[in-house]
Amino acid sequence: MLMATPDLVIIGSMGLDDVKTPFGEVKNALGGSASYASYAASFFSKPGIVSVIGDDFPQGHLELLQKRGINLDGIEKKANGKTFRWNGLYEYDVNVAHTLKTELNVLADFKPKLPENYRDSEFLFLGNVPPEEQLDVLSQMRARPKLTVSDTMDFYIKSKKEKVLEVVKKADIALMNDSEARMLFNTHNLIKAAREILKLDSEYAIIKKGEHGALLFTDHSHFSAPGYPLEDVVDPTGCGDCFAGALMGYFASHKEISEARFRKGIIYASVIASFNAEGFSLSRLQRLTNDEIEKRYGEMKKIVEF
Amino acid sequence: MLMATPDLVIIGSMGLDDVKTPFGEVKNALGGSASYASYAASFFSKPGIVSVIGDDFPQGHLELLQKRGINLDGIEKKANGKTFRWNGLYEYDVNVAHTLKTELNVLADFKPKLPENYRDSEFLFLGNVPPEEQLDVLSQMRARPKLTVSDTMDFYIKSKKEKVLEVVKKADIALMNDSEARMLFNTHNLIKAAREILKLDSEYAIIKKGEHGALLFTDHSHFSAPGYPLEDVVDPTGCGDCFAGALMGYFASHKEISEARFRKGIIYASVIASFNAEGFSLSRLQRLTNDEIEKRYGEMKKIVEF
Repeated sequence: MLMATPDLVIIGSMGLDDVKTPFGEVKNALGGSASYASYAASFFSKPGIVSVIGDDFPQGHLELLQKRGINLDGIEKKANGKTFRWNGLYEYDVNVAHTLKTELNVLADFKPKLPENYRDSEFLFLGNVPPEEQLDVLSQMRARPKLTVSDTMDFYIKSKKEKVLEVVKKADIALMNDSEARMLFNTHNLIKAAREILKLDSEYAIIKKGEHGALLFTDHSHFSAPGYPLEDVVDPTGCGDCFAGALMGYFASHKEISEARFRKGIIYASVIASFNAEGFSLSRLQRLTNDEIEKRYGEMKKIVEF
Repeated sequence: MLMATPDLVIIGSMGLDDVKTPFGEVKNALGGSASYASYAASFFSKPGIVSVIGDDFPQGHLELLQKRGINLDGIEKKANGKTFRWNGLYEYDVNVAHTLKTELNVLADFKPKLPENYRDSEFLFLGNVPPEEQLDVLSQMRARPKLTVSDTMDFYIKSKKEKVLEVVKKADIALMNDSEARMLFNTHNLIKAAREILKLDSEYAIIKKGEHGALLFTDHSHFSAPGYPLEDVVDPTGCGDCFAGALMGYFASHKEISEARFRKGIIYASVIASFNAEGFSLSRLQRLTNDEIEKRYGEMKKIVEF
């Protein structure tokens, strides 16, 4: 039997998080960029994950994803392996994560391998794996996807800048947050950084600014998405991944690449990310309804009206 | 002969600035919060300044303001006094000013005194003088103005917090930038800070975020104004003052206080401030046309459209 091709392929980490914020703490919570991104994408389409876990990974976490229609064929489970673990703390400024401990474990020598049924997917999100692996995954696709979006991390910008720039060039869109864009292009000015991204064969540049929203640039236009005003940020872990996943999920459901779609997609992505910050791990997204999403999308319209 | 009452009264500093940025430098340039705010306001209405200068203040600077229809009756010129001087440097991050030297000179013991013809003005902007002086000026008005807006400075938040809070309470709106709001209310979350402002008898709270735009809060609504994307920030000196002055000038021309007016006013204020950053001192505003203002206002609409 031929297995279905996911609407969207998501490469990234899966892990177990211990997180403490001014609002409380969780231990062994479902974490990792692929978990957050795929869950966020599942509000719009059916993603498939490529990741690696150890045999200590709780079955309940996998079932949570499966129940959302997320394809798990691409998750490699290493016998006698230990799952990636992250221990983080947020204090006064909840926008800044303090990493207390990272155990890469099975993630250390992860070589993502796309299952056959993933290789024809039209949408590809290259999450936070090393840039060489991102490029390798891209080469495993049978044809160039309709939209490839990559994420990056300050760690790789510092240690593997040339490879990161190669990913930016090969992907259609390289998502970055403001500090990453400043670091990668050695300028404080985000507009200058965006111009550099556009020079690297990118039609669109997106820069995420956390509480300040997100920016979209093309050669001839600019869009500024507001941040949704959250009085209580319970746990911001995974918000960037939710943003990316929701954006990709939105595109995979519409299959049309245009600036108008990007603007709407960025707002949906911001909305999902804002809900994610309202609870620990995926707790808030688990009880999120489509009505709530549409209502907040409508609020975002009112927030920028003048 | 009775002298005309200005549409708007602006209290603040007038000074001579030496400024260096990555784009060049100027010496003895017209500076000070009242200079910037009144020039920005003059695109919308006829303000009057209350400030103090020394007898070293160049006549050309005064003529520049006078030519814009700005009322100078409230400027006290101290014989044998030296004008306030500021020497600032902007480096990699042009959003951060490094003060190399401040000479208060005649500003040190400035007691603002409103000329008779100012005391019936319906709009009052209390710029960066000590909070006691702001309260004193307010008490000199014959009636409570239709709209009183105050500015604040981190220096006074640190040294005279209770007095600053009294100004916030007595003014209709206390303008703050994000770091000042966080400092004053001891929270990193700007939404929480805005709630605290609203608790202090304010119907509206405005928080300026520099390159990230500005936020408006009421008890039941929220507005986010985008930052205008400037690739080259030549000199950001006075942008906050231009924002305040343009906002007040806009209100003084419309004389109607409503949330819709605030939203539009904040966009005009952002537009004028963005132009100001394109040149040293008031050089860009001196050649700014109404067509350019309206064009950029229209661009701001497209920037947030989705």
